[in-house]
Amino acid sequence: MARVVRVAHLAVVTDDLEGALAFWRDALGLEVGGIHDVEQEGVRVAFLPVGDSSVEVVLPVREDTGVARYLEKRGPGMHHVCLEVDDLEGLLARLKTHGVQLIHEEPQVSPTGRRYAFVHPKSAGGVLVELYEAPRTGE
Amino acid sequence: MARVVRVAHLAVVTDDLEGALAFWRDALGLEVGGIHDVEQEGVRVAFLPVGDSSVEVVLPVREDTGVARYLEKRGPGMHHVCLEVDDLEGLLARLKTHGVQLIHEEPQVSPTGRRYAFVHPKSAGGVLVELYEAPRTGE
Repeated sequence: MARVVRVAHLAVVTDDLEGALAFWRDALGLEVGGIHDVEQEGVRVAFLPVGDSSVEVVLPVREDTGVARYLEKRGPGMHHVCLEVDDLEGLLARLKTHGVQLIHEEPQVSPTGRRYAFVHPKSAGGVLVELYEAPRTGE
Repeated sequence: MARVVRVAHLAVVTDDLEGALAFWRDALGLEVGGIHDVEQEGVRVAFLPVGDSSVEVVLPVREDTGVARYLEKRGPGMHHVCLEVDDLEGLLARLKTHGVQLIHEEPQVSPTGRRYAFVHPKSAGGVLVELYEAPRTGE
């Protein structure tokens, strides 16, 4: 049975990447695992691993994206929670049988090959939840 | 040097505990580790472990609490992120040297002996962050 295996990341949206890193990196002491631009999504992202999860600080760099509109409307703060699952199709199928509203009915594939889908916050207690399936190795 | 060791939990506030569990437990498939009342804080809490972290669904049961006011103002959704640290005093001291505004300047102790402190979201990129020190054993 498809299951959730860990909290992959917590995504925090910011309009000031250095200001956000002054807290998460400099004050809290998390290490930055990497900073990269995701051009297709119009964001710059800093990953800061913590335990078996990470904090992902997201800076919108274009205005025509969902995350930029979210930032404009709600201000900086939590954006979404990403849960790693071992079987994305299986989990999406179960969510549908429970009447959960999905933003993506089928797995999406990012330009880097990452497979994911978002659940609508209306069906997730007001939380924007991303489901992510780790790449399978050895196949 | 004091450091953050893991995401202890993600706290989600709800006005409908069974409705929230219908998503997190029944649809997503997380197991409920426990449900208990925290009378002093005026909440009922369900813990659902996932990886080395957990989702904590919080139902306010009294109106005169911060979390009840948060729910009334913002609706159901993410409430705070709790990070486990290995040295709470040390980490709070470092946050102060970085000018981080704290809700609790000194460690608080819950009725169950849990040591914690909250960081003000103004200084944490809009995120309400709880710092928690696990009980030390063998002392």
